[in-house]
Amino acid sequence: MRAVVFAGVGAVEVSSVSDPVLVDPTDALVKVHRAAICGTDLHTISHPDGMHRGAVLGHEFTGTVVAVGSAVRTFASGDRVSGADFTACGHCWWCRHGNHWECSQRQFFGTGEAFGPALAGAQAEIVRVPHADVVLHPIADGVSDEATLFFGDVLATGYAAVQRCDLSPGDTVAVIGGGPVGQLTSLAAQACGAGPVVLVEPVTERRAIAQAHGALVATPQEARPLIDALTDGRGADAVIEAVGGPRGLDTAFGLVRRRGTVVSVGVHQQSTWPLPVGRAFADELTLRFAIGNAIRDRDQLSGLVASGAIDPTVIIDLRVGLEDSPAAYEAMTERRTLKAVIEVS
Amino acid sequence: MRAVVFAGVGAVEVSSVSDPVLVDPTDALVKVHRAAICGTDLHTISHPDGMHRGAVLGHEFTGTVVAVGSAVRTFASGDRVSGADFTACGHCWWCRHGNHWECSQRQFFGTGEAFGPALAGAQAEIVRVPHADVVLHPIADGVSDEATLFFGDVLATGYAAVQRCDLSPGDTVAVIGGGPVGQLTSLAAQACGAGPVVLVEPVTERRAIAQAHGALVATPQEARPLIDALTDGRGADAVIEAVGGPRGLDTAFGLVRRRGTVVSVGVHQQSTWPLPVGRAFADELTLRFAIGNAIRDRDQLSGLVASGAIDPTVIIDLRVGLEDSPAAYEAMTERRTLKAVIEVS
Amino acid sequence: MRAVVFAGVGAVEVSSVSDPVLVDPTDALVKVHRAAICGTDLHTISHPDGMHRGAVLGHEFTGTVVAVGSAVRTFASGDRVSGADFTACGHCWWCRHGNHWECSQRQFFGTGEAFGPALAGAQAEIVRVPHADVVLHPIADGVSDEATLFFGDVLATGYAAVQRCDLSPGDTVAVIGGGPVGQLTSLAAQACGAGPVVLVEPVTERRAIAQAHGALVATPQEARPLIDALTDGRGADAVIEAVGGPRGLDTAFGLVRRRGTVVSVGVHQQSTWPLPVGRAFADELTLRFAIGNAIRDRDQLSGLVASGAIDPTVIIDLRVGLEDSPAAYEAMTERRTLKAVIEVS
Amino acid sequence: MRAVVFAGVGAVEVSSVSDPVLVDPTDALVKVHRAAICGTDLHTISHPDGMHRGAVLGHEFTGTVVAVGSAVRTFASGDRVSGADFTACGHCWWCRHGNHWECSQRQFFGTGEAFGPALAGAQAEIVRVPHADVVLHPIADGVSDEATLFFGDVLATGYAAVQRCDLSPGDTVAVIGGGPVGQLTSLAAQACGAGPVVLVEPVTERRAIAQAHGALVATPQEARPLIDALTDGRGADAVIEAVGGPRGLDTAFGLVRRRGTVVSVGVHQQSTWPLPVGRAFADELTLRFAIGNAIRDRDQLSGLVASGAIDPTVIIDLRVGLEDSPAAYEAMTERRTLKAVIEVS
Repeated sequence: MRAVVFAGVGAVEVSSVSDPVLVDPTDALVKVHRAAICGTDLHTISHPDGMHRGAVLGHEFTGTVVAVGSAVRTFASGDRVSGADFTACGHCWWCRHGNHWECSQRQFFGTGEAFGPALAGAQAEIVRVPHADVVLHPIADGVSDEATLFFGDVLATGYAAVQRCDLSPGDTVAVIGGGPVGQLTSLAAQACGAGPVVLVEPVTERRAIAQAHGALVATPQEARPLIDALTDGRGADAVIEAVGGPRGLDTAFGLVRRRGTVVSVGVHQQSTWPLPVGRAFADELTLRFAIGNAIRDRDQLSGLVASGAIDPTVIIDLRVGLEDSPAAYEAMTERRTLKAVIEVS
Repeated sequence: MRAVVFAGVGAVEVSSVSDPVLVDPTDALVKVHRAAICGTDLHTISHPDGMHRGAVLGHEFTGTVVAVGSAVRTFASGDRVSGADFTACGHCWWCRHGNHWECSQRQFFGTGEAFGPALAGAQAEIVRVPHADVVLHPIADGVSDEATLFFGDVLATGYAAVQRCDLSPGDTVAVIGGGPVGQLTSLAAQACGAGPVVLVEPVTERRAIAQAHGALVATPQEARPLIDALTDGRGADAVIEAVGGPRGLDTAFGLVRRRGTVVSVGVHQQSTWPLPVGRAFADELTLRFAIGNAIRDRDQLSGLVASGAIDPTVIIDLRVGLEDSPAAYEAMTERRTLKAVIEVS
Repeated sequence: MRAVVFAGVGAVEVSSVSDPVLVDPTDALVKVHRAAICGTDLHTISHPDGMHRGAVLGHEFTGTVVAVGSAVRTFASGDRVSGADFTACGHCWWCRHGNHWECSQRQFFGTGEAFGPALAGAQAEIVRVPHADVVLHPIADGVSDEATLFFGDVLATGYAAVQRCDLSPGDTVAVIGGGPVGQLTSLAAQACGAGPVVLVEPVTERRAIAQAHGALVATPQEARPLIDALTDGRGADAVIEAVGGPRGLDTAFGLVRRRGTVVSVGVHQQSTWPLPVGRAFADELTLRFAIGNAIRDRDQLSGLVASGAIDPTVIIDLRVGLEDSPAAYEAMTERRTLKAVIEVS
Repeated sequence: MRAVVFAGVGAVEVSSVSDPVLVDPTDALVKVHRAAICGTDLHTISHPDGMHRGAVLGHEFTGTVVAVGSAVRTFASGDRVSGADFTACGHCWWCRHGNHWECSQRQFFGTGEAFGPALAGAQAEIVRVPHADVVLHPIADGVSDEATLFFGDVLATGYAAVQRCDLSPGDTVAVIGGGPVGQLTSLAAQACGAGPVVLVEPVTERRAIAQAHGALVATPQEARPLIDALTDGRGADAVIEAVGGPRGLDTAFGLVRRRGTVVSVGVHQQSTWPLPVGRAFADELTLRFAIGNAIRDRDQLSGLVASGAIDPTVIIDLRVGLEDSPAAYEAMTERRTLKAVIEVS
């Protein structure tokens, strides 16, 4: 089959690889309809971790089941499905508590060994899905592939961030960063009870997308005055930082009110960050970290997407065929494109 | 001053009455800008309870503070405010637990003795507000009177109903009844995490309003098939009935799924209703009753209204001056009008 | 093998039956250590529903896994386990939402066709357990069989009732009925944040057990005055009725405060009950029904039992060998015994 | 009157000071029965902040109302009351949201200007209580002064820490520090749904107290192995650190499981702490800070104390008369005493 594969640091190419086959009785094979390119893919190719040349990339996908192992109970050939970006057993203590991300059987599609033993990705004609009963999710009739495509990472991530805020209805929420996750965080917050949502982002085009979809917007310099005007000077009830690193956390702490909550979904590569502990104690702050969990949250997301409460497709600004995927990688790397979708079949 | 007063069973008139004065040190006087006519007003004049001829009607209002008693701490003359429909002390066990409705010092504006000792209403040039620190709420700059006018009853009621559902994001919600409360319940559910919201209403015009503002709609006959299609045959996760009486409850129980929740905000005048207890037990149902509580919920509502997450003004289809109020009562009684607002000053 | 079997209406006997075998690849066989006799067993033999002579009874059990099907992932021979009283697939919409009781693959051990297709019970030397990965639960080292035996019904039921109350810490809770479920409800409430717990029960011996384990106690006549003294006349914040029928609900509504919650875990065989809807509306009451769900709640219960926060063994007042089980049935039927445990092996 | 007063850095004495008088109409005067000495008092005298020689100390107290201002609504002379340690207006945005600690009218009894404008303390024969309707709480008949004395600080603090954990029933909780707050945190956790509670403390006598009241105990070296044994190696679901400083946080992060919660109620005087952000992100940790809020939490605490679910008096190991208070300060400073109570009248 044809697939997008790792071609050395910073490079991808489309090449022919062996078709995947069923390995375990809990496996399924899925013929891919749509696969998305994610910031995690860009990171994977620039900072590969156990990623071999020729390894298939990609972890956001939808498709049709074409084969199932003998122990698969809830899916059959012909079922339309969306995938999670990682696998989990569904039975262990972590899975029973909704913490599938901590499952000892976690593998992450198409990212080498960064998050567990390597597993071939989904930017391909066919993808093998371990623990299919747990990892796949049915797509309801009348729902498009694109609408469920981001369950597999960026929408699940934004949603997880919002849930970690424990919002009270009407709360003022700041979202730092207007990338794909930040944009979908804004949509998820609006759908889940937020009052004013302020997306903080230096790039004009990204602010424009957020503003067109219900958010107030601000540059980093404008953010605090705007939030003060909304909150009588208190600051945001919750701040979700979706850029990562010390800068994201610093900005978040500059916007949050006393007794407020900061949620970080940005990636952190430093080992430590100087938490302003004196203020955090005096102001009784909460700081939480969140990683998307499609397996836990897809049923809720399905209802929000089916009703139109969230339309995740608004972030798509490039659609390419499988053979043109390398150009889409390049466009995203150069930030000319917010989110690219590969129309595989 | 001029005021809308009770003029015998089924009748109202505008007449001149004495100006209210400060009685207790916790009182304020409010010059009324806007007052709304509510279904409760229609019920009050048709079924008066301790309502004397000449008593001032009305309990949804906004205005400007013009005088405060010596013990009022948080308001001063000139403050723009919206009111609650009832009074509460703010300090007793019930008030401390957010159950202001149960406060022993409850009075309800303009409804005779139906809900406590009589208290003159707010469809008047000036209204006396007991426990002003508790009963009044500031209107933020840039927010219109109309946007906060319904905090005093119908919006607080719809919001309370939604909160009693303990929704999970994406839940399918049915709302029975397309009157003012039903319409605002639909908006509150959409703002607070619901997935599909189905408003069930036999009157075409009322369905059209709901549909124009985000709800799916159905006649009572269409409701179950539509909800089945949305939920794979399970039924609605939550049903809010806003019509009252046994019919509202019967319809609600016909739409709710196993382990689902029915919330009733409609008025019940029967002493008993034959609960289908065998099914309720087997299906582990929840049945809750809700009454609006502006005092408890106004801060949350303020955020939702300020951001536009809820626009309660969409239900207003008639605006009149104070002298024309009787015609507006008539239009609402004859169901020619959904919600009338009196522009007092 | 030897097993307790149905011997005609109202009768049980111990007889030799065929050993169970693995049927589906998700099955396990468990060598039973302990099985309990439950009120549901008494009901099953007096009101059999699809129960054939010779069918094995019993649904509360612990034991050791002795064989597993090819698709069982998380258990192996030699594992000590406790069971749930019913089966569920673990993958469907209902199971994913924690509503395993609604799973279309539900079977209930040893109760004929009352709650799904018949499945042989656990008062036997060996029991076949479908969906073993979902239905079984590991027993930690150092935890006794008896401590986890009631996960399979009465403890899970009492715990579910308490969870449905959404208690605030310190709440005053009334429990109606001092049978096994009522007693364990009292313990679960105390462990999960209740303030005063009042167990209401006419039988002196049953009140004594509750009192010895932390509850206040009252006869039905004493209940309201006692609760009034505890709550300044308001009534109980939550009432859990564990006797069933209209009497249980009537008593509960007589004890609950305004805006309080009634949870019913008693069985209801009438089709309707005259809900006092006028009061329920005016007082904004909540009425919920609950059925135990060991599969959902066992992890939480394990922590409470391991720490001693709940000691469910305090209700055991009779222990018999398998061959003496009929006498234990008789003692429970005649209410000479609160809870009997069969020491199978 | 006689009172315990600040006598220069590190020193207290009992001297005669002017009787307090009513200043504002919302004030009350309370004749003190019991006052406690708190770690905050020790800190106040060793690190005074706006504390003048002769200023009255103390903020945990019970007593009887002896005079009320004209605007006090809910208390009258003769009422038995317990106090909060700080004042709040009860009406502002912060107070309405349960964040009384952030009220702009906050004063803290007997601590100089450390937490707001100075306010005379309660280790005295009479104390003036501003905002009496908000700050005081009635003591129910049959409840002792000692049982409610710690509402004013250490019990409210421990309880707040536990509530910030959002415990699931049965969770394994570690409490770091066996001082008064740590001990009461252990009791509050046990009463509010925790499974195993492990108190980590190097001092043998303090471990013994915790063990006598339901906790498992460990030295800092023993803590991780014990918790691993309880949690199958995962770590504690929640860790509450009640010692403060970087050491408390470091220890807490060493005990918490992936996706677990750390709550800090210890005091932090550094401006920053090196948060292990890489791990916190990968493990999706939550870090929260908590300060006691008697005003918000006293109703819940009253129920827990009235039922005996929490007995806060177990930490009292010294009772003195007012004139002997300096010796009690000395005993606490030298850690010979865990918690001293002054029997004022």
